[in-house]
Amino acid sequence: MARGCGASVIEAATGILYTDLYQLTMAQVYYCTGLHERKAQFDHFFRSYPNYGAHQAGYCVNAGLESLLQWMSRARFRQEDLEYLRSLRGVTGRPLFQEGFLRWLERHGDWAGLSLWAIPEGRIVHPHVPLTVVQGPLAMAQILETPLLNHLNYQTLVATKACRIRESGRGRPLLEFGLRRAQGAAANAGARAALIGGADFTSNVALSQLVGLPPKGTHAHSMVQVFISLGESELDAFRAFAEVYPDDCLLLVDTVNTLESGLPNAIKVFEELRRKGHRPLGIRLDSGDLAYLAVQAAKMLDQAGFRDAAIVLSNELDELVIWQILTQIEDEATRAGVEPESVIGRLVYGVGTRLITSEGAAALNGVYKLVAVEHNGAWVPAIKISETPEKTPNPGHKAVWRLYDSRGQATADLLCLAEEDPTQAPELVLRHPMDHTKLRRLRREEISGMEQLLVPILREGELIYELPSLEEMRAQRLADLERLDAGVRRIVNPHVYHVSLSERLWNLKQELLARMRAPASGAG
Amino acid sequence: MARGCGASVIEAATGILYTDLYQLTMAQVYYCTGLHERKAQFDHFFRSYPNYGAHQAGYCVNAGLESLLQWMSRARFRQEDLEYLRSLRGVTGRPLFQEGFLRWLERHGDWAGLSLWAIPEGRIVHPHVPLTVVQGPLAMAQILETPLLNHLNYQTLVATKACRIRESGRGRPLLEFGLRRAQGAAANAGARAALIGGADFTSNVALSQLVGLPPKGTHAHSMVQVFISLGESELDAFRAFAEVYPDDCLLLVDTVNTLESGLPNAIKVFEELRRKGHRPLGIRLDSGDLAYLAVQAAKMLDQAGFRDAAIVLSNELDELVIWQILTQIEDEATRAGVEPESVIGRLVYGVGTRLITSEGAAALNGVYKLVAVEHNGAWVPAIKISETPEKTPNPGHKAVWRLYDSRGQATADLLCLAEEDPTQAPELVLRHPMDHTKLRRLRREEISGMEQLLVPILREGELIYELPSLEEMRAQRLADLERLDAGVRRIVNPHVYHVSLSERLWNLKQELLARMRAPASGAG
Repeated sequence: MARGCGASVIEAATGILYTDLYQLTMAQVYYCTGLHERKAQFDHFFRSYPNYGAHQAGYCVNAGLESLLQWMSRARFRQEDLEYLRSLRGVTGRPLFQEGFLRWLERHGDWAGLSLWAIPEGRIVHPHVPLTVVQGPLAMAQILETPLLNHLNYQTLVATKACRIRESGRGRPLLEFGLRRAQGAAANAGARAALIGGADFTSNVALSQLVGLPPKGTHAHSMVQVFISLGESELDAFRAFAEVYPDDCLLLVDTVNTLESGLPNAIKVFEELRRKGHRPLGIRLDSGDLAYLAVQAAKMLDQAGFRDAAIVLSNELDELVIWQILTQIEDEATRAGVEPESVIGRLVYGVGTRLITSEGAAALNGVYKLVAVEHNGAWVPAIKISETPEKTPNPGHKAVWRLYDSRGQATADLLCLAEEDPTQAPELVLRHPMDHTKLRRLRREEISGMEQLLVPILREGELIYELPSLEEMRAQRLADLERLDAGVRRIVNPHVYHVSLSERLWNLKQELLARMRAPASGAG
Repeated sequence: MARGCGASVIEAATGILYTDLYQLTMAQVYYCTGLHERKAQFDHFFRSYPNYGAHQAGYCVNAGLESLLQWMSRARFRQEDLEYLRSLRGVTGRPLFQEGFLRWLERHGDWAGLSLWAIPEGRIVHPHVPLTVVQGPLAMAQILETPLLNHLNYQTLVATKACRIRESGRGRPLLEFGLRRAQGAAANAGARAALIGGADFTSNVALSQLVGLPPKGTHAHSMVQVFISLGESELDAFRAFAEVYPDDCLLLVDTVNTLESGLPNAIKVFEELRRKGHRPLGIRLDSGDLAYLAVQAAKMLDQAGFRDAAIVLSNELDELVIWQILTQIEDEATRAGVEPESVIGRLVYGVGTRLITSEGAAALNGVYKLVAVEHNGAWVPAIKISETPEKTPNPGHKAVWRLYDSRGQATADLLCLAEEDPTQAPELVLRHPMDHTKLRRLRREEISGMEQLLVPILREGELIYELPSLEEMRAQRLADLERLDAGVRRIVNPHVYHVSLSERLWNLKQELLARMRAPASGAG
């Protein structure tokens, strides 16, 4: 490890060498066999929804495209990258990379030849549906695999988790607090994805600046501790905070004792603020029985006339914990003489570790598979046999259509050949992607709408897409959620959303599989 | 979200605003109350070992310090950072930050006043032991909390996982393959930590360059698919690869059918290489029953005279899966007529997702707690009461000693007051950190060695530590592991290693807790 200086591990993620070695060694094989500039198509998709153990996602929220495009807009084979590749040696000490290949990378090792289609960020997406389609020279499309997956897998994972947490919180505000427990520099991409998927704000200042939202946060236990250590009190600490932030006063009340010290002290300071014409924001609870304490806090704040004061909850929250807290509040509040809605209606959730790391399912199984290669001027669909049928990718150029039923609800995503026009068919046949016995027929009149999901992003390296704003991505997410059945949106044990193949795509797949299996026994 | 351009989410992790807003709002409270330059001490430690569900760690491998120091060496309040803070508004539209505070940050918002001690990277570490100690002006020590935890939590988590995977693999080589499934830009820090903790190499080219190791990898299924799609065969693909890499030929044999196509084709190509005077490296298995296939592959390679050819295993490996594979090989190989050791002795593990994300335990619960503040020229120890005793930090300046028993094995980590000298005591009293009924006495003659774990890193902002090389960190890890009891090293249900308090530290803690509890009922 370079002692002391040199590029940091974070900065090393911005260059083109942020890829797996085998992408480069394969690219050289393509170069040596004259295939490197052959046009190829790769599809990016995930194979299954995140499974958190006790609970499972029934949909994902797509995210990460803008970050990938930013990476691509800068990552090039610079002289220092080529020098490094030139220095690599094989087992016998011979250079691993040949000069001809390195010179080709120097001249053509960029993304100028690539075209890219994608489903926009913020859209609800499902397994086996191409989320990103890359077409271009085989060598560069191959090298892109690793950085593309690195950028897209994680953001979709976290956007999905954020959406679930927001759903379980019944629409109350959600703050992303995970920077300290994030997997290193993932924190920024994670906070961005959380903001697309369901978080309102983040405590992460750098990322807030980047996305143009105000960062959120007030104080920690340490501030109260400092005052107590110096012979002063929790009340002194609260007063010092209120003095500096009279109109932004949100106090953490569990450093000493929530009900006996923190809340009475906070209310005392709030009363002082009120007398000076200020309106306190509320309190934060970070330990103990959050449901019970929230009810008690609401009661005490109400009695003191602070009916608007927010109650921020934090401490290892996720969608299940929030669901449990709300259930318990509904049960306990009435007995405590408080309207449940007057407690729930003032809650704010601060969610850290379990959102930013997607606890229980720390990776999305997104893959990037070759589906077509150019041959004699025409596209040839590619297939890969797998022992597990779910792992066999769908071949060739495809279009993705979302079908809406008579209620306007999304009823299936249909993958078909790019040249098919399902809007013209009187009846659609929806094939299960693996199971030949399962099919569904939809008459045109049963379909209230059909929408293509993939949009063109890059044409031969040129950006031909207007990147949506954060607000647009969030609006897209909400619109898609509203058109998703409640059963699919469920946090636990969700219904399975249909992802289907058209009859023609199904037939192509079977034909290729049969052809692939035939010569296999001959061992080449 | 800025449309198109602007700094990327990755680069935004290198600046000083890569922290939580509340660190800055608290720093301003300290400024306004004249406490911002008051000396304070914070300890960084983790509360419990990673628990992966079915299995749990009995130790951690410390990592991340160099990355934190690199971040600190660059992160400053630049004009653009101050301008951004100046632009932030509170609820009423008033600036959140005052000019006086911003001017102070401009002049003093750096790490020049901070001193830092740490346990070196690569050392085996345990809960509640300070891994990093920060002393300096309260405001800046507070702001450092979030980035410090962000850098250190994740790397220690992954170094620990890598160490466990290496242990279960019986010392056979371990390759880190996780870039595509890592949580975004965490990939580089994760690969670095894996290399410290137990991985030999990584496929990540950028990170390999940074640490000065050759990156590893050969080819993927897609290369074979390309040839098949163009009307050629798996054998043609293998031959093309062998032509380019005659001395570095490692072939992935499961694209079509491992036993009927991949292995026979690989052996055919290996024979061709041998005739030309080259020595093939081996094969990779990436699907199916890896134990069964490894035995069959070893048998076929042996029969063809390739007894040295490596068998690389990949596909969702972790410490449990590897353990299972080795157990099954020991069981099956003999029946198949192969020596188990001749199979195991040629294995190499390629581990992706489950290492780089620390599957099952995606975050380490590292914290950063105020333990002392300067008052009238003297240090005052600080405490925080918590409803869960494990969450009450150990107060004051402390030294950390590792005690070795008569066998030379580490028997406990002892936290004591900095001014204590346990090497001079005829008998040591080791107090359980929470349970007053549990204590252990060690006579001097029962102790074969005592070692201080914390070393000085920064003195008033100046680096006074020579950063170890990767090889030195790995050697440290191996030396510490050898002195750790087998029961603690166990992958499942490990023994609990003792972390103890000295009698004087225990007494100080009890005294502070009693003093803290006393005024609590008075509500300030």
